[in-house]
Amino acid sequence: MASEVNADLARERGRATFDPENLTCLLYGGSSAVKRRRYLQNLVKEDPVLKGRKRWAFQNREERVETAMWKSMYLDKRTKDLGITSSREKEYFREAAAAHEGHPMGLHLGMIIPTIKNQATEEQQKKWLPMAESLRMIATYAQTELGHGTFIRGLETTATYDPRTEEFIMDTPTLTATKYWPGALGKTVNHCIVMAQLYTQGRNCGIHMFLVQIRDMDTHIPLPGVEVGDIGPKFGFEEMDNGFLRLNKVRIPRENMLMKYSKVQKDGTYIKPPSEKLAYGSMVLLRCSITGSVASCLAQACVISIRYSAVRRQTEVSPGGEEAQIIDYQTQQYKLFPLLGTSFAMLFAGEFISNFYTTKYPEIAAGNFEFLPQLHAMSAGLKAFGAWTCSEGVETCRLCCGGHGYSHASGLPKIYLDCTPACTYEGENMVLMLQVARFLMKEYTKMMKGDSLSSLAEFLRSDLSKRSCMTEDVALRCLVMGYNHRAARLVSDAASNIQKLIGKGKSQLEAWNSSTVRLFWAARAFCHAFVVENFVKTVTEGNLDDQTRTVMTSLCKLYAVHGIITNLGEFIQDGFFSSTQVQILQNKLMSLLADIRPNAVTLVDAFDYPDSVLQSCIGRYDGQVYQALYDYAKESPLNEKEVLDSYYKYIKPAQTSSKDVRLSRL
Amino acid sequence: MASEVNADLARERGRATFDPENLTCLLYGGSSAVKRRRYLQNLVKEDPVLKGRKRWAFQNREERVETAMWKSMYLDKRTKDLGITSSREKEYFREAAAAHEGHPMGLHLGMIIPTIKNQATEEQQKKWLPMAESLRMIATYAQTELGHGTFIRGLETTATYDPRTEEFIMDTPTLTATKYWPGALGKTVNHCIVMAQLYTQGRNCGIHMFLVQIRDMDTHIPLPGVEVGDIGPKFGFEEMDNGFLRLNKVRIPRENMLMKYSKVQKDGTYIKPPSEKLAYGSMVLLRCSITGSVASCLAQACVISIRYSAVRRQTEVSPGGEEAQIIDYQTQQYKLFPLLGTSFAMLFAGEFISNFYTTKYPEIAAGNFEFLPQLHAMSAGLKAFGAWTCSEGVETCRLCCGGHGYSHASGLPKIYLDCTPACTYEGENMVLMLQVARFLMKEYTKMMKGDSLSSLAEFLRSDLSKRSCMTEDVALRCLVMGYNHRAARLVSDAASNIQKLIGKGKSQLEAWNSSTVRLFWAARAFCHAFVVENFVKTVTEGNLDDQTRTVMTSLCKLYAVHGIITNLGEFIQDGFFSSTQVQILQNKLMSLLADIRPNAVTLVDAFDYPDSVLQSCIGRYDGQVYQALYDYAKESPLNEKEVLDSYYKYIKPAQTSSKDVRLSRL
Repeated sequence: MASEVNADLARERGRATFDPENLTCLLYGGSSAVKRRRYLQNLVKEDPVLKGRKRWAFQNREERVETAMWKSMYLDKRTKDLGITSSREKEYFREAAAAHEGHPMGLHLGMIIPTIKNQATEEQQKKWLPMAESLRMIATYAQTELGHGTFIRGLETTATYDPRTEEFIMDTPTLTATKYWPGALGKTVNHCIVMAQLYTQGRNCGIHMFLVQIRDMDTHIPLPGVEVGDIGPKFGFEEMDNGFLRLNKVRIPRENMLMKYSKVQKDGTYIKPPSEKLAYGSMVLLRCSITGSVASCLAQACVISIRYSAVRRQTEVSPGGEEAQIIDYQTQQYKLFPLLGTSFAMLFAGEFISNFYTTKYPEIAAGNFEFLPQLHAMSAGLKAFGAWTCSEGVETCRLCCGGHGYSHASGLPKIYLDCTPACTYEGENMVLMLQVARFLMKEYTKMMKGDSLSSLAEFLRSDLSKRSCMTEDVALRCLVMGYNHRAARLVSDAASNIQKLIGKGKSQLEAWNSSTVRLFWAARAFCHAFVVENFVKTVTEGNLDDQTRTVMTSLCKLYAVHGIITNLGEFIQDGFFSSTQVQILQNKLMSLLADIRPNAVTLVDAFDYPDSVLQSCIGRYDGQVYQALYDYAKESPLNEKEVLDSYYKYIKPAQTSSKDVRLSRL
Repeated sequence: MASEVNADLARERGRATFDPENLTCLLYGGSSAVKRRRYLQNLVKEDPVLKGRKRWAFQNREERVETAMWKSMYLDKRTKDLGITSSREKEYFREAAAAHEGHPMGLHLGMIIPTIKNQATEEQQKKWLPMAESLRMIATYAQTELGHGTFIRGLETTATYDPRTEEFIMDTPTLTATKYWPGALGKTVNHCIVMAQLYTQGRNCGIHMFLVQIRDMDTHIPLPGVEVGDIGPKFGFEEMDNGFLRLNKVRIPRENMLMKYSKVQKDGTYIKPPSEKLAYGSMVLLRCSITGSVASCLAQACVISIRYSAVRRQTEVSPGGEEAQIIDYQTQQYKLFPLLGTSFAMLFAGEFISNFYTTKYPEIAAGNFEFLPQLHAMSAGLKAFGAWTCSEGVETCRLCCGGHGYSHASGLPKIYLDCTPACTYEGENMVLMLQVARFLMKEYTKMMKGDSLSSLAEFLRSDLSKRSCMTEDVALRCLVMGYNHRAARLVSDAASNIQKLIGKGKSQLEAWNSSTVRLFWAARAFCHAFVVENFVKTVTEGNLDDQTRTVMTSLCKLYAVHGIITNLGEFIQDGFFSSTQVQILQNKLMSLLADIRPNAVTLVDAFDYPDSVLQSCIGRYDGQVYQALYDYAKESPLNEKEVLDSYYKYIKPAQTSSKDVRLSRL
């Protein structure tokens, strides 16, 4: 394939007003981190073992499962051999080799080992960690059941202590208690950390964790009483053997309950954990990482769709003239450029929440719970807001690429399939949003009482009678004020709605349940405001040269202005913006699209995703889109035979005698 | 599996306030049509040849391609044997056997044969129709090229007339001229109707149709000069062999140009068609059918997600109490019930546009073009508005089913993959929306000149200074007035924006291009208003008993009120609704959700989709969701082997010696 860069793309890069390297460094933590990232990506690219394999899109499920297992083991070994220890660097390495592909060892390495470290006693750790680290024991986390998801207290699996034998009897008492969905459970693991209702001395002590061996260590055959398997094909994650598990009175030693905090003594006496809050640490960490990863999904989709929009030409602008680059259409800009802004906004928000976790979690683990409510609310909110925004955004990017977006050749469907489940896993989005709302209502009540507020809730003090300061120059501070006003007003609206219903005789609970849509609106507005303010902070305070800051300021304004226009009702329902101010914002939206236009390609270049990560015929750095699509088609497995068997079986006989269609069965 | 109906679902049906049969009859054209539909669906269900086949979700691409071919031939033969001739009945029959599955013979039967009838001379028809009907000739429609989609004039494939041999030389002059995407082109067809630039006597006469044989009639091997194949896997439509085609100076007889309207005489003289407008008939027909089919995708998704929401229980409402049906959560109602309204709204709109086509097209074909602009605009607008709304709606339904929505067991991903490409094919949605805008601008200009308007544009005469008549009872006519006001205002805004830019010295073309986002807003508002008004008409004038009309009136109001709240800015930017009226509408939204709640399950039952069409473990009529999911998992092809090869290849060796990961290649 020609390595020459498509002329349109080359021209786009030539006319950028800033150097993308500066922005790349801001995104990845400085120039030496960027260098290191590229070095790792290049190692993968040049790795002879990884080269020349069958494309992901051309593999069937069985092949994907096998490839994923192979890659999982190989990449794990390579990272160890290379001495890569930072989790971020491991991610870069893995992404370069298997972007958006499931990782059958991922849960074992990323969640089980940390859980043993956090939730098992020292004695247990001494026994289990060497087994887990050598992969003798490979485990997954079995929480979700066929009939039970986000509401953990509803789980039905039981662990009943038998003091005579000093064992727990693990049982699946009903169909709906069947464990369902855990990753790598179906075929890969030989152990599970099972979440189950603990019963001892005749009473229920709530949900606890138990390490249960499910397969023979030598033959990998399920143990007696264990029924386990794959749950079948899904929308995506085809390479993962998400599994089901039924335990028929399977006995495990008392020592297999993870007993760092809660304990069951030999005689069956239950000892409570010092705090319930300590159990949530690893879930919060996971949620914090989701914001950044859905943001990078959207960023990649923007790279693909914006580069393609610069290469693709469609419809002559004036009769008989040259066809225009589709990126020159205002409607295309209107769909893509705000998403480009969203990518940065969510990447910066992901960075914020990760840092927040890293700095605050040690205090929390040490028993200082001051920051826990904020960490919990913000990680929940940014996960939910990010997963919704980014997965919808990825689909919009795909639809902006016309027919070719629908082909796996574009790489876009693969990104969507990886991104959209983030709306559901690690806490269903709507449930999380209502947890954010609960935090906001508590803070609102504090404010009404005159108590001090969490720093993240200071916006509630906005004077709701104030009108917007917005003028023709559309200042960043007026945008931030607008978002904070909207959020504060919606929180106050939801609170008064609850009060009104209570006034009408409803219970607190009923009033809450009849206000959840309004609470959702409030929580969404809060998250949106936070993301805007954090974007503004990063752009104004981040380490950027002047040219880059100018471009990023425009993009930040576009993100904020577009968000106002898209949710206009919530901003103007109380007259916060005047009709003239709305017109100013609408005109600004159009002029910002034009401002971003010359730098759009260079802005996506700044994300610095190599072709090996994008895996896209239409998003290639060199813009050789059509040659790549043609090559992709030629490789299609369906083309291995010139004439398919179905021709001989069904078409030929029908042609010979249309009365005698032979009916053979698949 | 237990055939007993889940108790929650049974209770839902017991408390409905109306009989769904009445509504089913309204949807499908009366009780005898409903009977016939059920009869046909039942024939498929009981067909021994179709029974007990491997699930669609468990087939790999090669199996799907083969199954689709087999089903295509079998169903075609069965419909013939059964004497089914109505296209609607053929659809019911096919849907019951292969819902949301590609139909490799579909284009040949549904598009090529009609095109020959409409665009070929009588002599050509005499020769080709028997070949096409006996399937000796199987053809597809080759329009889209690698570098060219919606803009037909940009196609590069050439047909150059050679008067010496009286042949056309068909050629693919560039890489981007490669035909790409036509359905069934890759492996199935032996002929194509190729859209190409006609050159004769040294000049370009524009795009015309040519019948080109591409494969040998006996061996099915591509003919010399023909390069053809499958384009590879896509997001969906896996069973279809969408193809690519390159023609290297392939000669075809002069008689193979479709010459009913345009002609090339033996000496090369080109004869123009009497009207350019006649070529668009079949595309308009196809567009008209899309609105109804995306609406039925959404309706099916609503059936699945609403039934599942009635069966699924999650989170105790009060501490220690029973877990609630998730359909009782206001946030779940807020997501699903407006989509239920949308399903009806779009089904009725699809019915309207099909009837409009059927009644007006004969006049158009006879040369009376009076209704063509309206037919063109409305079919384009409803296709685009419907495809966007319904495909987003299907995804929302899927996300409302939590984790299980992500499994192919839910049936929801299959529906989405079938629905979303409708945003792109038969005219890219945004391009169509701007065609709608062009119609609106023409009508607006007529109005300003005092000329009479098309009936569909009468709303433009709304007095924009009037405020809404909305009161506490939220009358249907005030809702309709609101939508018409918004549409008229946005049309007028877009027009003044264009005028303003022209006033600043821009050309008409530049002014248009800088206003396309506003034009899109106007076109969207117009389509939305039409759909609301048509919904209101159907509910008030349709043949419904009182109980059903009451329920449907609530649903219609919900659709309209939700649309206002979701797009609030566009309705209140000019002060059309007062702040009090907005509060009335917000409260009404919540109370309508509660009103619909008791009838939600019965409303989706009224769509009357049998389980064989839904193919959903979680949307079954009997609500035996968990048993079906468990059975689905057990059947997963990955469970055929208890221990996968990848265990022996990768896990076992790693466990034995973590330093020696054997690396075999797929």
